[in-house]
Amino acid sequence: MNEKKEVGEKALDYIKDGMVVGLGTGTTVFYTLTKLGELVRNGLSIKGIPTSKQTEKLAKEFGIPLISFSEVKQIDVAIDGADEVDPELNLIKGGGGALLREKIIAHAAKTFIVVADPDKNVAKLGSFPLPVEVLPFGFELTKKKIQELGLIPHLRQVQGGPFRTDNGHYILDCRIPDKPNHKELERELNLIPGVMENGLFLGMTDKYITLDRNKDNSIVVRHR
Amino acid sequence: MNEKKEVGEKALDYIKDGMVVGLGTGTTVFYTLTKLGELVRNGLSIKGIPTSKQTEKLAKEFGIPLISFSEVKQIDVAIDGADEVDPELNLIKGGGGALLREKIIAHAAKTFIVVADPDKNVAKLGSFPLPVEVLPFGFELTKKKIQELGLIPHLRQVQGGPFRTDNGHYILDCRIPDKPNHKELERELNLIPGVMENGLFLGMTDKYITLDRNKDNSIVVRHR
Repeated sequence: MNEKKEVGEKALDYIKDGMVVGLGTGTTVFYTLTKLGELVRNGLSIKGIPTSKQTEKLAKEFGIPLISFSEVKQIDVAIDGADEVDPELNLIKGGGGALLREKIIAHAAKTFIVVADPDKNVAKLGSFPLPVEVLPFGFELTKKKIQELGLIPHLRQVQGGPFRTDNGHYILDCRIPDKPNHKELERELNLIPGVMENGLFLGMTDKYITLDRNKDNSIVVRHR
Repeated sequence: MNEKKEVGEKALDYIKDGMVVGLGTGTTVFYTLTKLGELVRNGLSIKGIPTSKQTEKLAKEFGIPLISFSEVKQIDVAIDGADEVDPELNLIKGGGGALLREKIIAHAAKTFIVVADPDKNVAKLGSFPLPVEVLPFGFELTKKKIQELGLIPHLRQVQGGPFRTDNGHYILDCRIPDKPNHKELERELNLIPGVMENGLFLGMTDKYITLDRNKDNSIVVRHR
């Protein structure tokens, strides 16, 4: 049984004809996109807004019609994965590097649906290092300011140098302190001038689709 | 008498041998840079960090040695202009579009010196529209979120399309409500995912150099 496929496809229960749908990024949403393409071929009429160049490419490949921001009145539903999900459905996102665009779309959507296999469920956020998107200009200063908050930032690298997001920014993957106040941490991070966005998604999830390890891995949909 | 020249040059009283100096952007700081080049030619040894491509170009032209962020241990002083200065030395900046880099440098500097002719002095901030730097991706959504805060945003244009900052972002020039809590406004703006930075510089100014209209336009240095 492919767990990612199962939860990824389940999200489509909430997609109806005529909707504008925010399309997340990652290995779980990949299955949402595959299936969505199939539904579109079978007559479903929706428009998608991709959260990354990678997803835009996949959407085109799967025949999902896209819409530009200038034409969008509202985003009805956004579907996305997560790197960690806590019991209050707060998230850490950004392992794939698309957090900023994902957060813009999720923030704008009327309903934000998260899909993740149960390995992403945690009692509290923070085993997964928090991705923080920063401006390349002066990122050394920004890194220092983040350290002053008690975090341990590490510049994400790819072969040949620093990883660049779709927006041309860098990512600092940050170990966070043991007992952080996440709401305060998010506010403090975003008040540092070089910080473009951070991977904390607090109070944004409307529905969370995962599997219940205690019930034969059956699908469970949780609501905030 | 050239008021901008007078206050711009006065800032150099605070520059000492061996300092790393943040170099602001704009028509007042232009005179700081001109004079600084002169001092360097006469033997002053400092290193500059420019806040914009425009200032980088001028600094090179004037023979001011520059230093890269990777070499900087600390920024001793940053000197910059402002579009508005209130009695508590809070600022609106960003008319020239360099607010993000300026804010990174000012935030990192041990001493932040503001230079402005007295026309920039206001009883309260907000006659000058507040520049807010936003990600081009989905800026229509970001604009809507800013409107929901009660601001009236207007996309800054140049010939041929939207103005782009040195960072490749857009600027929304925002009329702000009559009685805002600036601290809250800054926090709320920076919590909107597509907002990269805003032009409110609150509690950052250490020294403010201007002219006193009531005292024969003599130079006055105010401290926070």
